[in-house]
Amino acid sequence: MGTSDAALRKLVVVGVGLIGGSFALALKESGAARRVVGVGRRRSNLDAALRLGIVDAAYAIEEPWTAELTDADLVLLSTPVGQMTGLFAAMANSLGPSTVVTDAGSTKQDVIAAARAHLGAALPRFVPAHPIAGTEQSGASAAFAALFRKRRVVLTPLPETSTHALERVRRCWSRCGADVHELEPSRHDAILAAVSHLPHLLAYAFMAEVAGRGDSAELLDHAGTGFRDFTRLAGSHPAMWRDVCLANRGALRRELAIYRDELERVEALIAQGDGDALQALFERASTARESWRARSTGEPD
Amino acid sequence: MGTSDAALRKLVVVGVGLIGGSFALALKESGAARRVVGVGRRRSNLDAALRLGIVDAAYAIEEPWTAELTDADLVLLSTPVGQMTGLFAAMANSLGPSTVVTDAGSTKQDVIAAARAHLGAALPRFVPAHPIAGTEQSGASAAFAALFRKRRVVLTPLPETSTHALERVRRCWSRCGADVHELEPSRHDAILAAVSHLPHLLAYAFMAEVAGRGDSAELLDHAGTGFRDFTRLAGSHPAMWRDVCLANRGALRRELAIYRDELERVEALIAQGDGDALQALFERASTARESWRARSTGEPD
Repeated sequence: MGTSDAALRKLVVVGVGLIGGSFALALKESGAARRVVGVGRRRSNLDAALRLGIVDAAYAIEEPWTAELTDADLVLLSTPVGQMTGLFAAMANSLGPSTVVTDAGSTKQDVIAAARAHLGAALPRFVPAHPIAGTEQSGASAAFAALFRKRRVVLTPLPETSTHALERVRRCWSRCGADVHELEPSRHDAILAAVSHLPHLLAYAFMAEVAGRGDSAELLDHAGTGFRDFTRLAGSHPAMWRDVCLANRGALRRELAIYRDELERVEALIAQGDGDALQALFERASTARESWRARSTGEPD
Repeated sequence: MGTSDAALRKLVVVGVGLIGGSFALALKESGAARRVVGVGRRRSNLDAALRLGIVDAAYAIEEPWTAELTDADLVLLSTPVGQMTGLFAAMANSLGPSTVVTDAGSTKQDVIAAARAHLGAALPRFVPAHPIAGTEQSGASAAFAALFRKRRVVLTPLPETSTHALERVRRCWSRCGADVHELEPSRHDAILAAVSHLPHLLAYAFMAEVAGRGDSAELLDHAGTGFRDFTRLAGSHPAMWRDVCLANRGALRRELAIYRDELERVEALIAQGDGDALQALFERASTARESWRARSTGEPD
């Protein structure tokens, strides 16, 4: 049995939130990881992770956690992407010779640039990754082992990435039940700007605007299930999404410009009272969404 | 026992879809309606309504259904609002002397104008109403008796509306488990433009734009649960929402203008790389949504 099939003897998870916590749980439950060390900012969250059996040991970020890296098989960075530069810098000199590093950031080009700047000789053992999964909940207490089941995880390896490191990370995500794919980093960031980063931004902007009005209480009293669904993303982790918006601002601004143009066209249709064109637009949207749902995981909508 | 407490001997539902079908089911199951007559456009949907016990008799819209109105206690119009002018005109001469008419349209000023234009002496027995409930599903087969439980129903009575008619309609919605309120029609339309009509339009526009791209298949392969929630409204009934957008276009265009201005501000924050302002915006949105959820029905998000 090659080492790529063996269980991880030690997994270090930096950022024991929904994503990092669920990864740890899924690997422990499947027998793919033995010992998990958690690192984080909030003591209360680390305590929850210990209590829930997500991690076996926990360090606050200001404690000497990097000593745990020497014999770690895998390190997962699952913090907001804005923190990763500092983490790579802190880790670089403590990584063991066979320690593989991966991340779970929603943007890839910025994380790769940070890794290139700081990881030095360990760069071939860095595997950029993005699990396309999550809920608007955050923190260790929101974690659950099935989070990644049938979800897509995108790996965006560098030319330098070692096959061995890539396979180790691929295997871990497969053990989580995920569907693992590869993309070029820039293509990843462009795609995610369109289908994830923009919708988050649109939901945040909508919710903040409505909530900021003098009559918001009365407005919200009349908000129903449609409003609930449309604004669910506005309950997401603010610091994480601030970092995503800044890290991927080029692609996000292109998407925002496309959407603003689309709204201008829609506004013109309404102003002209063009019911046929509006209905055609709504039917295209409705048909496309239905066929997407039919192709995707088959869960209830 | 006054007549307002008695069960409806005959309820006529025009448009036996999600809303009309659920209203009929809820009243039958609670013993508040004995016989339900359904009227609709699609024979297959009427057959489903008969099979599911939603209606006891069914007429296609081209059949002589108005003969059923003379002894009806209540008529519910639950069609797209664009059809209501024609329905009021068709019904006016067949309504019995104590038949009350109500509707379930998402807009109120246009429906009231249509009723004023056509109902004549029966106008005091028309009670404009809007149940703020629904899913993106449509048709009789999507109907269920609990749809309105703990949901808000807004009545927008006219100065002419008789107390007796108002109470009959209020009682029916209460029997469905709804939380019944009253609003001025123009205030209703302004509020709903902000919290319902605009989100529908934004979701439709987003979904249609993404689906219309050459690389939409690859984009949609990377769409996750956030995308699913954000676009759920784009699966709504296209003709119904075309009618709403046109009927309430004044208020909807005002809301769209406000939102487009908000997007312009957000775009500036991203262009300037103003992380603090972005995070503050996201936090306002997130906090407001959380407190709205805490105040509302208490169902899982």
